[in-house]
Amino acid sequence: MSESKDTHVATDTAPQDQKFVYDFTEGNKDLKGLLGGKGANLAEMTNLGLPVPPGFTITSEACKVYLATGTEPAALRDEVGAHLDALERKMGKKLGQADDPLLVSVRSGAKFSMPGMMDTVLNIGLSDKSVAGLAKQSGDERFAWDSYRRLIQMFGKTVLGVDGDLFEEALDDAKRAKKAATDIDLDAADLKKLVKQFKKIVSRDAGRDFPQDPREQMDLAIRSVFESWNTDRAKLYRRQERIPGDLGTAVNICSMVFGNLGPDSGTGVAFTRDPASGHQGVYGDYLQNAQGEDVVAGIRNTVPLADLETIDKTSYDRLMRIMEVLETHYRDLCDIEFTIERGELWMLQTRVGKRTAGAAFRIATQLVDQGLIDEAEALQRVNGSQLAQLMFPRFDHGAKTELLGRGIAASPGAAVGKAVFDSYTAVKWSRSGERVILIRRETNPDDLDGMIAAEGILTSRGGKTSHAAVVARGMGKTCVCGAEELEVDTKRRRMTVGRTVVEEGDIVSVDGSTGKVYLGEVPVVPSPVVEYFEGRMHAGADDADELVEAVHRMMAYADRRRRLRVRANADNAEDALRARRFGAQGIGLCRTEHMFLGERRAMVEKLILADTDDEREQALKTLLPYQKKDFVELFEAMDGLPVTVRLLDPPLHEFLPDITELSVRVALAESRKDHNENDLRLLQAVHKLHEQNPMLGLRGVRLGLVIPGLFAMQVRAIAEAAAERKHAKGDPRAEIMIPLVGTVQELEIVRDEAEQVIAEVRKSTGIDLRLSLGTMIELPRAALTAGQIAEAAEFFSFGTNDLTQTVWGFSRDDVEASFFTAYLEKGIFGVSPFETIDMDGVGELVRGACEAGRRTRPDLKLGVCGEHGGDPESVHFFHKVGLDYVSCSPFRIPVARLEAGRAAAEPDGRGDTR
Amino acid sequence: MSESKDTHVATDTAPQDQKFVYDFTEGNKDLKGLLGGKGANLAEMTNLGLPVPPGFTITSEACKVYLATGTEPAALRDEVGAHLDALERKMGKKLGQADDPLLVSVRSGAKFSMPGMMDTVLNIGLSDKSVAGLAKQSGDERFAWDSYRRLIQMFGKTVLGVDGDLFEEALDDAKRAKKAATDIDLDAADLKKLVKQFKKIVSRDAGRDFPQDPREQMDLAIRSVFESWNTDRAKLYRRQERIPGDLGTAVNICSMVFGNLGPDSGTGVAFTRDPASGHQGVYGDYLQNAQGEDVVAGIRNTVPLADLETIDKTSYDRLMRIMEVLETHYRDLCDIEFTIERGELWMLQTRVGKRTAGAAFRIATQLVDQGLIDEAEALQRVNGSQLAQLMFPRFDHGAKTELLGRGIAASPGAAVGKAVFDSYTAVKWSRSGERVILIRRETNPDDLDGMIAAEGILTSRGGKTSHAAVVARGMGKTCVCGAEELEVDTKRRRMTVGRTVVEEGDIVSVDGSTGKVYLGEVPVVPSPVVEYFEGRMHAGADDADELVEAVHRMMAYADRRRRLRVRANADNAEDALRARRFGAQGIGLCRTEHMFLGERRAMVEKLILADTDDEREQALKTLLPYQKKDFVELFEAMDGLPVTVRLLDPPLHEFLPDITELSVRVALAESRKDHNENDLRLLQAVHKLHEQNPMLGLRGVRLGLVIPGLFAMQVRAIAEAAAERKHAKGDPRAEIMIPLVGTVQELEIVRDEAEQVIAEVRKSTGIDLRLSLGTMIELPRAALTAGQIAEAAEFFSFGTNDLTQTVWGFSRDDVEASFFTAYLEKGIFGVSPFETIDMDGVGELVRGACEAGRRTRPDLKLGVCGEHGGDPESVHFFHKVGLDYVSCSPFRIPVARLEAGRAAAEPDGRGDTR
Repeated sequence: MSESKDTHVATDTAPQDQKFVYDFTEGNKDLKGLLGGKGANLAEMTNLGLPVPPGFTITSEACKVYLATGTEPAALRDEVGAHLDALERKMGKKLGQADDPLLVSVRSGAKFSMPGMMDTVLNIGLSDKSVAGLAKQSGDERFAWDSYRRLIQMFGKTVLGVDGDLFEEALDDAKRAKKAATDIDLDAADLKKLVKQFKKIVSRDAGRDFPQDPREQMDLAIRSVFESWNTDRAKLYRRQERIPGDLGTAVNICSMVFGNLGPDSGTGVAFTRDPASGHQGVYGDYLQNAQGEDVVAGIRNTVPLADLETIDKTSYDRLMRIMEVLETHYRDLCDIEFTIERGELWMLQTRVGKRTAGAAFRIATQLVDQGLIDEAEALQRVNGSQLAQLMFPRFDHGAKTELLGRGIAASPGAAVGKAVFDSYTAVKWSRSGERVILIRRETNPDDLDGMIAAEGILTSRGGKTSHAAVVARGMGKTCVCGAEELEVDTKRRRMTVGRTVVEEGDIVSVDGSTGKVYLGEVPVVPSPVVEYFEGRMHAGADDADELVEAVHRMMAYADRRRRLRVRANADNAEDALRARRFGAQGIGLCRTEHMFLGERRAMVEKLILADTDDEREQALKTLLPYQKKDFVELFEAMDGLPVTVRLLDPPLHEFLPDITELSVRVALAESRKDHNENDLRLLQAVHKLHEQNPMLGLRGVRLGLVIPGLFAMQVRAIAEAAAERKHAKGDPRAEIMIPLVGTVQELEIVRDEAEQVIAEVRKSTGIDLRLSLGTMIELPRAALTAGQIAEAAEFFSFGTNDLTQTVWGFSRDDVEASFFTAYLEKGIFGVSPFETIDMDGVGELVRGACEAGRRTRPDLKLGVCGEHGGDPESVHFFHKVGLDYVSCSPFRIPVARLEAGRAAAEPDGRGDTR
Repeated sequence: MSESKDTHVATDTAPQDQKFVYDFTEGNKDLKGLLGGKGANLAEMTNLGLPVPPGFTITSEACKVYLATGTEPAALRDEVGAHLDALERKMGKKLGQADDPLLVSVRSGAKFSMPGMMDTVLNIGLSDKSVAGLAKQSGDERFAWDSYRRLIQMFGKTVLGVDGDLFEEALDDAKRAKKAATDIDLDAADLKKLVKQFKKIVSRDAGRDFPQDPREQMDLAIRSVFESWNTDRAKLYRRQERIPGDLGTAVNICSMVFGNLGPDSGTGVAFTRDPASGHQGVYGDYLQNAQGEDVVAGIRNTVPLADLETIDKTSYDRLMRIMEVLETHYRDLCDIEFTIERGELWMLQTRVGKRTAGAAFRIATQLVDQGLIDEAEALQRVNGSQLAQLMFPRFDHGAKTELLGRGIAASPGAAVGKAVFDSYTAVKWSRSGERVILIRRETNPDDLDGMIAAEGILTSRGGKTSHAAVVARGMGKTCVCGAEELEVDTKRRRMTVGRTVVEEGDIVSVDGSTGKVYLGEVPVVPSPVVEYFEGRMHAGADDADELVEAVHRMMAYADRRRRLRVRANADNAEDALRARRFGAQGIGLCRTEHMFLGERRAMVEKLILADTDDEREQALKTLLPYQKKDFVELFEAMDGLPVTVRLLDPPLHEFLPDITELSVRVALAESRKDHNENDLRLLQAVHKLHEQNPMLGLRGVRLGLVIPGLFAMQVRAIAEAAAERKHAKGDPRAEIMIPLVGTVQELEIVRDEAEQVIAEVRKSTGIDLRLSLGTMIELPRAALTAGQIAEAAEFFSFGTNDLTQTVWGFSRDDVEASFFTAYLEKGIFGVSPFETIDMDGVGELVRGACEAGRRTRPDLKLGVCGEHGGDPESVHFFHKVGLDYVSCSPFRIPVARLEAGRAAAEPDGRGDTR
């Protein structure tokens, strides 16, 4: 959670006595702020009695002083000296001692792991003198000179700022001269020569000699770690990850141990259980006679950790015991780095290990069963993003594939079907049982039927917030968008990729998790988790797998704890029923404009083109029964649960052809003297309704106030549908929602009209109706005047999509392509504010509106129906500001349920607002 | 000020003992909240010992009780009874007494005068019995029956809700039967018959008889006044004028006096000084033997008030003395209604009188000279709207004119010139000394040169916030827009209005104050006030007129008191110099995009079409010297004063052709096989840059972050220009302003880049430069995170135009035409939020951002550069929230100065923020 990064509390960062250096025996794992993650865990292991090479940690407080003043704190030099003395006593040798040098590593280690900072300088303490001592002590002259060579190279590059290529070139020259394939083939004499050259490079490029004084080496390395906090890359990373810029980094000084001193030495990594499955067992890799960097470089192949048992049974048994200790102690999967130096096992690092989504769920429940953690803690061990990952079907990784191209992974999943290039064909083919992939340059609301009918959507234009991407994510449907290599030709019903032509009917496979598009059918593995939510697989049943059991239990933990209710955004009975299966407790947003499309478009066109009151009333009368039927079905599907119906929102020209297309058509027709009265009339209407900025134009409540009878028709349809359901002994719970309200006066006028219509329906049907009426809060002004608006609204539903657009002043249709990428790269956004709610800006408005609204009307119902309702971090925020519910697309409901439970289970999750 | 309406304080509204009726002797002029304006002034005059017909006032508190509970307060009937008794004793006759009836009028009178409420019922107390008594007492039977007829008609219509047409039809029938031209020709017998008919109409239509009990008449009339508070028209008016809906109205019961009892009677209106010029003297009208309603009906001609001296010297002298008393007492021009009944003078009403703008200034200074008011109070007697009116030239009202059509009065003034239909011709002709009127269907930024060159602008499309209107108002240039009768044909260079064709070169006259458009030249009277501000006429000079003297003095009062500084929005040296003459203390907004138009468009096109870094850098390099030259001129014009330069703001496609126009052109050319490479390339660029909602797209700081080098070029131009001016011993004070910032990270990146460029210029020129850097606050998010943004900004300039658009979620280009009119009609807006700042919404953000910004940076400079900076009410708001300056178009500067002074001179104007 980046949230915890934002709200770092100074409990463990600034002790009163300003002690700047902690021996490994003095710290513990809860001092990450002060000692960094690496230092805190080294201290924790030391205190557990595990074999950690002795050492000490310089606190991030010292770094802060350095960054603020440009010099180390006055006391630091002496403190480091005292700890170094102690270390030397403990190790029985002095840093850089000529005959038997103590060598140390200097490593950065901040509270949050952070690429871009100086990582490590090994072998500090080597010099022209001590290199001989190391050779003697190790009995390996080549090893000693290679270690020295590495020190000068690493130190020169990272501490003295020498161009690293200079060292590489010298090394290459040496290998060429020796006709050596790798540097392993260089002997001690070669390396001695190389050391000489490296020292020259340092003197020339850094303007100073490589320091021979070991303490000076150490001090310069420490300072260099401090300074690396502020490299451009580190700053960029912090901006992107929202890590505060003033935390500073700790520095770890650790005595060196060597895994490359012969066959009785080696190095390895291990996990306390399988990070892929969560199963307990022996997982890891081992490399004999090697150092950690060799494992990373992949020069030789590692062996499975289990083989260590035969190589070095004592160390193996010892490691197994240590791993048990660590897992019990950390109460979680740990990953470990270790080195064996001549039969002696040393622990170099441990931390709570990363794992796959599936393993996260399994491990959490396993740990509950082992009694190591309780249910609330188990909830903190998983998250909604992981659950979402588990819900998508996947392509079989083993299958043979033919890659066509690659776009943006807009909505995950694996879809296979016949290529179709228009909605009509998509619907027709899918009705006859074909699976289809809808391929378009870009989609628009007209493609909705086709998108519903298709297995997946593929576009050659648009980004992660394009229409295709947003709608597909909303439907939980696989989508790859902006695959620019594809040339889509909708007229000829085909697309071209390089020399490959894909015709209508050819089979394609679309991977929404990777953005890859394949020709032909790639086999798909279905998600058992979705089978479970859909009710086709049951936890506890014989065929249920472990993962489903774990998910089932975690969902139960979450549902028991959460205070937020979870509703669905659904516009028809089918979606509503699915949402119900997924656990929806109502519908938070039914968009009535989706009921105006398809075959009803002609009626809507009549409404828009109406010249007289009569024509308009006639058009509305024609629409009424259709609307009513929609609502009857919806209320039946959600019987007994609240259904929030939003009155018509989008600008009317969305129901008409595009102005440029139509203008060109008409101009061309005219140039052929080919008059088309209907087109001309349409063009006139399109011109009249054309807006420079339709998002900021005539829509929402403004339509309702300007077009007489429009909202009244919709309210009548809702009221009559509710009456019909009541008559049929149903339990309809309709809530009427007015979009785009900016001022209470708008709402008052619409409310008065609605109440009159409802009274009429009550009278004409004889059925006692109670419909609640509320508003979207989706304009900054609505949020700012929420106290006034609450006087006329029984509920608020925050439309955080539009609110994000107006608060930031950008339209999602436009900005992603033009500058979102640049903004993410520059770290201006950590994450798109359309994905996770912008807490400082949009969130402040939401928080303020909640408070003001409840001051006016204490029982005001509060919810959110923007896409943020299904976003993990945002759900936590909504929990904290005290909403009653979140509403999201059906597919996101389990995620929202889980996250709502996690938010409530947090130690500070009791609904406080900051 | 509507503000005072909004913040009505209950000091004079709810006395503890709930006394519901006040005798005229008990009230005073400061009790307007309780007694209404009319009642308070009647009481004031009574207490001054002036001859007011005795009576009493029922408080608005009684009305509030009635409106809340549906019945009069329990005590009211008795209290009214007691006051009626006292009145009857005083008058020596009883209400409706058969032989000599006391008659009363019942009039509404709220705190704010309000059309739509029940106005007056006269002659209460007449009945079948008392009509004879009145006849006897007055010695005029016709008078008595006519009075009775009027009572039944008025009472029937307004109190009993009878359809007024029924009375009018009966009256017409009677006149037809008698062949009478007017009702004067009906005699007593006719009127008796009419009374009978009227009573029948009442019985039939109201379902009850006309009440014969005089007390019942009075009580019903009182209740009717109460109820008229909530008529639809009254509610609508209150919404529009932002008058709180819960004030209620008072009711005045006044004994009747009659001006129609013979030649020694009469009625009149008078002003204590000339409301048109402010001169002291005898101003008013008198009508012998008549009632007030006859004066209004205009049946007979009135005589000048001075003639009363010969008609009735005693009354005349008495009236003169009373007028002196009133003016001294009210310390202002009063208007008066009076009646003389058989030689006896009665005062029926007085109030502070309306006056022309010019008179307001003259009267204020005259009253200062007379020692009646001080300078601070004088400032409250005028306002910026009046000053603005005085600044526009006007057409000579006496001239003969030929009206062509009428549009929206978008920007006042009187302009005459030759019709031109494109900017090119406008500029060409104006250079050769012609005065031109630019006539377009609508304007866009390309027309700017033409608009500058033209005397006035006339469009056939667009409303008060269309491009033409906004830009013209900004320039202080006459504009009529949306004159829909005009068919503008730019291709043929002519327009048609009905059968009249106006060709290029024909002279037209455009009145921006009335929206009227004339054919031919209408003589224009210049504004001496502008001559004065321009320095072409001097206060104190021989030829200066009184008005200029008064304005000069009032401006001095304002300048002495104001705390807000006033800057100008100006984009070139010419505007800047004018602004300086008008009193600007700097430039608050220089829009650099205006420097990208005209002949430089080609360079900008190159910049946009640049495919490579080289091409882009070359394009920027070409633009640099032009930008620099602009700034040198500007800094020279504003030497010693701050100049805020805003970096490029608008979306790039504004510099390219319209997508639809270009698409049609290309399609037509293609259909003719007529390829145009340049058009095709342009079309590609236009498509790439096309945005659904350009206002919410790639513009402002986003451009600066996405197009490498763009902002750096602009900053370099500013810095080099400043260096050049410094080198020439000038005192340039440049401030660099970043537009459309939403988050502090954007600002930090731009600031770092700017600082680097400035350092380079400092180094290359050797001149010590100090440029301050700040940001527009024009997005809600900028305002919400102002505390963070202030860390990187030395100043904030609120862009309240854009802020209004995003806070409300509407684009000014789109919404006025589509729904602003409806919103104003429905009272959702009292005034467009683009004219006067929306204090509850936009204003709250401004207030919060000021506070948060100053918390971070106490010396943060705060200003506003939206159009609100020149709006009177908004200036008061900006004073209250503690801005340092407002910036507005040069022409509005005197208005802003005056209003800033007025705000500071208000009793509570010491800068408190609520």
